Amino acid sequence: MKDEKKISSAVIKRLPKYYRYLLILQQMGISRVSSNDLSKRMEITSSQVRQDFFNFGGFGLQGYGYDVTLLVKEIGNILGMDKINNMIVIGAGNLGQAIANHTSFEKRGFKIVGMFDNNPRHVGDIVRGIEIMHSDRLTEFMSNHSVDIAIITVPREYAREVVDKVVKLGIKGLWNFASVELEVPDDVAVENIHLSESLMALTYKMKEIRNRKAKVLKKTESK
Amino acid sequence: MKDEKKISSAVIKRLPKYYRYLLILQQMGISRVSSNDLSKRMEITSSQVRQDFFNFGGFGLQGYGYDVTLLVKEIGNILGMDKINNMIVIGAGNLGQAIANHTSFEKRGFKIVGMFDNNPRHVGDIVRGIEIMHSDRLTEFMSNHSVDIAIITVPREYAREVVDKVVKLGIKGLWNFASVELEVPDDVAVENIHLSESLMALTYKMKEIRNRKAKVLKKTESK
Repeated sequence: MKDEKKISSAVIKRLPKYYRYLLILQQMGISRVSSNDLSKRMEITSSQVRQDFFNFGGFGLQGYGYDVTLLVKEIGNILGMDKINNMIVIGAGNLGQAIANHTSFEKRGFKIVGMFDNNPRHVGDIVRGIEIMHSDRLTEFMSNHSVDIAIITVPREYAREVVDKVVKLGIKGLWNFASVELEVPDDVAVENIHLSESLMALTYKMKEIRNRKAKVLKKTESK
Repeated sequence: MKDEKKISSAVIKRLPKYYRYLLILQQMGISRVSSNDLSKRMEITSSQVRQDFFNFGGFGLQGYGYDVTLLVKEIGNILGMDKINNMIVIGAGNLGQAIANHTSFEKRGFKIVGMFDNNPRHVGDIVRGIEIMHSDRLTEFMSNHSVDIAIITVPREYAREVVDKVVKLGIKGLWNFASVELEVPDDVAVENIHLSESLMALTYKMKEIRNRKAKVLKKTESK
């Protein structure tokens, strides 16, 4: 059975990136793409692309290219994009508001349905049509609305408390920006954003470039 | 020579995560850590941890554990954290301000030295001691200050123009939040943040959990 097949975690990590590129192609009106073209954008080999897609049962004939619309649909299904995901933002400061303003999420079926903060300065403000509510109203809101994902953008010292609360209220997905490790039941999915890791990946690349230059310079000097 | 050794990209991707965990241990006053403990936090095998550290020349004796302070220092050096990185924020809306307010970056030697926006509503505002300047002043600012990294938090339609400008002004590192692919010279490092990829990784996990549950339910029913 197709859905019984175990997909490697390395492939899974590439799926959102494939999906993102394929959406760009779709928007450009491109209907077929070769593994070669995809491989260049993905920075992996074209045989890796073919192998990845083979894992999911094909998606196209080799040589003729892959059907972009079909790929978007199938990869979207695998990624759980075949349904609307209702989201609430907990912590409606700069970061929470920035995320709520990120229009491209909505195009992909991610819909902000509520925003919460305990700072009176934010409560009552409206962000893209959503009024920021006081955190006290979270329990009431969640019992009246279907919410799939809670976006945690509170300061880190409040994160665990907030997460315990929404997990008790039945949330099954947490997108965590608070830079703390969360402990949640097995049936709750968590995805952490660690911005500092990305920043360190950048300084690593910068240092590599500096080292490369220094080496070239040394070689030139020793001539 | 140590710095001639080629380090695999998989190892490099793990380094920021190691570094983050090791800083937590250091803050907790823990001076030694076993590969076993690190492996649990990193969600990789302990033999993988030992192999990773072996690549960099050891860092400790097996069985006795690794020296946390030494690891922080050495991995920090590899990641380019052995210097202060001066950063400017271009696009001082919600996202730019949220990043400027992220105090933990500063502790790691990432220092915001300037913020720019072309929206008069933001210009003149002060974020953590930094006054938001009009984008017109970028050229003047960069000729008078040493800037390592530009954080690109402008709307995506302005991103390429802004990036071309700072690259011409000599920037060597770009932290790009604008969800557009950038084309830059070889000596400029770019790290892209694609929030949507992380969100899709979350819905994938949620779908996996739903599928698992459905399967258990089916088994129970068929008994």
